[in-house]
Amino acid sequence: MNEVKTIIVKRSAYADNDEEANLLRDYLKSHGTFLVNLMSSPGAGKTTTLTSLINILKKDFRIGVMEADIDSDVDAISIAKNTGVKSIQIHTSGMCHLDAGMTKSGLDGIDISDLDLVFLENVGNLVCPAEFDTGASMDMMILSIPEGDDKPLKYPLVFEKCDLVLINKIDTISYFDFDIEKCRQAILRRNPNATIIPISGKTGENIDKVAEYFSNIIENWKEK
Amino acid sequence: MNEVKTIIVKRSAYADNDEEANLLRDYLKSHGTFLVNLMSSPGAGKTTTLTSLINILKKDFRIGVMEADIDSDVDAISIAKNTGVKSIQIHTSGMCHLDAGMTKSGLDGIDISDLDLVFLENVGNLVCPAEFDTGASMDMMILSIPEGDDKPLKYPLVFEKCDLVLINKIDTISYFDFDIEKCRQAILRRNPNATIIPISGKTGENIDKVAEYFSNIIENWKEK
Repeated sequence: MNEVKTIIVKRSAYADNDEEANLLRDYLKSHGTFLVNLMSSPGAGKTTTLTSLINILKKDFRIGVMEADIDSDVDAISIAKNTGVKSIQIHTSGMCHLDAGMTKSGLDGIDISDLDLVFLENVGNLVCPAEFDTGASMDMMILSIPEGDDKPLKYPLVFEKCDLVLINKIDTISYFDFDIEKCRQAILRRNPNATIIPISGKTGENIDKVAEYFSNIIENWKEK
Repeated sequence: MNEVKTIIVKRSAYADNDEEANLLRDYLKSHGTFLVNLMSSPGAGKTTTLTSLINILKKDFRIGVMEADIDSDVDAISIAKNTGVKSIQIHTSGMCHLDAGMTKSGLDGIDISDLDLVFLENVGNLVCPAEFDTGASMDMMILSIPEGDDKPLKYPLVFEKCDLVLINKIDTISYFDFDIEKCRQAILRRNPNATIIPISGKTGENIDKVAEYFSNIIENWKEK
């Protein structure tokens, strides 16, 4: 498969993004579709990790993926090819983040009527995406070993916002100075509720634990 | 040294950033101070590379460093300690980039009267910093091997803007799928004038070539 649908989104005309985000969460709840907003730096491994994760979760959930990028559709094509799930590309018209209105346009484009779980891969950026509520049911992030263990100090907001933090590329840890325990403590100071799972999206290490986390959290969400 | 001066900057009141940036470039020229705007993703190795580079260039130039971050001053302290040059921290009050007015505030804080060369380490982000002219004499960027060779496709603007692109962490290339030649071609399609130098900020590989690049470009700039 070499073609995927591309949606071009623009800044919402809606004045209050928080209000629109809350409306979107209600809409998703009423449709029984759990939306995950995934954030990270460029190249932290969002697409590779999602591919490994979806290949486990797709046995239990009907999954869709929305890949947001300034430009290019390489990620949406890669996800569709390597997981077989429904995937669309969202182009942000040069913008560095997604807001709730842009997310809603993407959801309309992918059609959630037959989906239990949608992953939104946000633009690769640790700053701006954290400032806008997309309306997702939960926020998660990936920090990768080569980026360094000081990132929770430098980009506090995204760590405060994400209740699931994956520390990716642990297969490369011997080549970098990265202290996982120090990083874990820095994250927990920012967000005491964070679940932190070291993984390798490439080798698949601990991806089963991430899948289990999602199975549990979606079950709780449905019961609420 | 455990303390560095910290400047808190806010969005400029100046309506036209491009005009303010041009005025700043003239001001720098009249003072004989060459300002380099350095951009990259979080964790691509800006501070480590600057440290190696400054330790070569400081023999020939009086150097200052302005470290911009959302929060924290770990980079400014590290630079001051490991190079001995004048270093200040710029806090962006949550903003994801620097504009010309914010850069000017930083320059006033560091005092350029005794400096030939100032490096501005922009916020770690491949999107927003590229959209604002800081008024620097030149723009450069670092892309690191772990981020992947597809970044010129996804973040075209920053590659178009930077005439010097360092491909960092080449000491780790055997652990990642990164095709340097493919990446080089993708960068040159965006910017045929780009000089691309693979380096390791950590081991110092090819940092001498980067230093030579700066010696030449500053000499040309002075003669203009």
